[in-house]
Amino acid sequence: MTREIAVVGAGLIGRAWAVVFARAGCAVRIWDPVPEVRAQVMAALTDTCRTSGDDPACLMRVTVCDSVEDAMAGAEWVQECGPEQIEVKRGIYAQLDAMAPEGTILASSSSALVASSFAGALAGRGRILVAHPVNPPHLVPVVELCPGPDTSPEVMDRAEALMRAVAQVPVRMAREIDGFILNRLQAVVLAEALSLIEQGIVTPQGLDDTMCHGLGRRWALMGPMATINLNAPGGIADYLERYGPTMARLASAAAGGEAFTPRVAEILAAALPGADQVADLSRTRDARLAALSRHLKQV
Amino acid sequence: MTREIAVVGAGLIGRAWAVVFARAGCAVRIWDPVPEVRAQVMAALTDTCRTSGDDPACLMRVTVCDSVEDAMAGAEWVQECGPEQIEVKRGIYAQLDAMAPEGTILASSSSALVASSFAGALAGRGRILVAHPVNPPHLVPVVELCPGPDTSPEVMDRAEALMRAVAQVPVRMAREIDGFILNRLQAVVLAEALSLIEQGIVTPQGLDDTMCHGLGRRWALMGPMATINLNAPGGIADYLERYGPTMARLASAAAGGEAFTPRVAEILAAALPGADQVADLSRTRDARLAALSRHLKQV
Repeated sequence: MTREIAVVGAGLIGRAWAVVFARAGCAVRIWDPVPEVRAQVMAALTDTCRTSGDDPACLMRVTVCDSVEDAMAGAEWVQECGPEQIEVKRGIYAQLDAMAPEGTILASSSSALVASSFAGALAGRGRILVAHPVNPPHLVPVVELCPGPDTSPEVMDRAEALMRAVAQVPVRMAREIDGFILNRLQAVVLAEALSLIEQGIVTPQGLDDTMCHGLGRRWALMGPMATINLNAPGGIADYLERYGPTMARLASAAAGGEAFTPRVAEILAAALPGADQVADLSRTRDARLAALSRHLKQV
Repeated sequence: MTREIAVVGAGLIGRAWAVVFARAGCAVRIWDPVPEVRAQVMAALTDTCRTSGDDPACLMRVTVCDSVEDAMAGAEWVQECGPEQIEVKRGIYAQLDAMAPEGTILASSSSALVASSFAGALAGRGRILVAHPVNPPHLVPVVELCPGPDTSPEVMDRAEALMRAVAQVPVRMAREIDGFILNRLQAVVLAEALSLIEQGIVTPQGLDDTMCHGLGRRWALMGPMATINLNAPGGIADYLERYGPTMARLASAAAGGEAFTPRVAEILAAALPGADQVADLSRTRDARLAALSRHLKQV
């Protein structure tokens, strides 16, 4: 039986989700409050598939709806991709929870708001969670599944199973934490990177090279725990004994939020390609991510 | 003219460096103080090439030497790969600096010791630097070039040029800092990862999935600065304005060295493949890194 999915919000993230679900064989009903956005969804989706190498034929399974009720009709899962503003999210969830049939799961793409902040008071809070993707979701498979305090374990089980069924990689969190997992890891790297650049120890290009020709090579194949498990002959215990004290010292000396200074922002703006190149570079990135994704599936 | 390189120390890192230089067309003279190690170098190098897909024919350019003097004869560059112990390093550099002809550069593979700590008092300190590779150097191309306070800029220029000539990616640092760049970035990720795992918010597997199916995908293609430059429509300045405060808050709340606890070490040892699997898994990792390297060269 075809699985039915609603996507609420047809911006960049909503459209990428539509591709994720449609290429996996789901029937996708997508809606956006802005009529002009709705009118352009199918053309934008075709363009997305062209860049990523996904067969645009999958878009036959996508329907653009004129109302949110229409989009949600029959859906087992609603992927909400609205603006990242707490008041807007609260309004959306009050409406979705009132309208959605029992058994429909409501999942937010929020990258910064936890479910308790916008769904904590709703009758259906047990079926609401955050399913946070990475930009762009159709090319980077991880999805952080973060329950609110009242999200039911059965809903989390269904969420995990659905994500696997559509070939994403779910990461199930035990409870809410600010920034989830991915952005907490990204934040510490950014802070330390900005600090080293502002101190003049390394250029922005040198910093990026260290990651993409160094750590990033390994981390694209295995995570940081699996990596260090192979960085000492006796495995993880041996690693932590040999290098733990050094790593602990470096972590304790690392930069925090104070590294986000106006001065380093200026250094970076001068060193990196300008805003007028963001669209083209994003397209190139997406094509390379798609090629990398195909490569990683083969090996 | 064939470039002549000496490799001092024939452990895992020394042998990988030998492959880096030999496959790029250099004549490599390698020495190790332990006769049993010397006797096995060629067989081990053949095995390394087999795993990485490098043509073992390049090993015709490698000579195993019976003395360090013999290895250094005529070399423009000495890649030292001795033990990571300060007293041993000091002894090695006193000897190398006394023996090496003027103009020979002495580069240490040290991952934790800065040049001033073992070469600060030597007459030739101007030609001594750290050239820190990543394990395994023949499959992960970044090399951190860290000068001591007296390393000459001309030596740094030659170091950078040589690394490019042998197809590594040099990252030139302006001055010494504990941990260089790569391990400072790795340390903050490890500390935050260990903390999240010990708190029970995510499993070791979930943490690794977040990196290798999420952040690591992007970071294998572009560094963290280039990544955030594409994560807001107006580029880096726009990104830092929109998300800087959130990232700063997360970085300030992040774990430091206190995250390296015996308890988390136990959790990890129970979750990860055991020490008896390290050798096999390392071989698999190397084959996958080699395939990834070939893929990244094509796109």
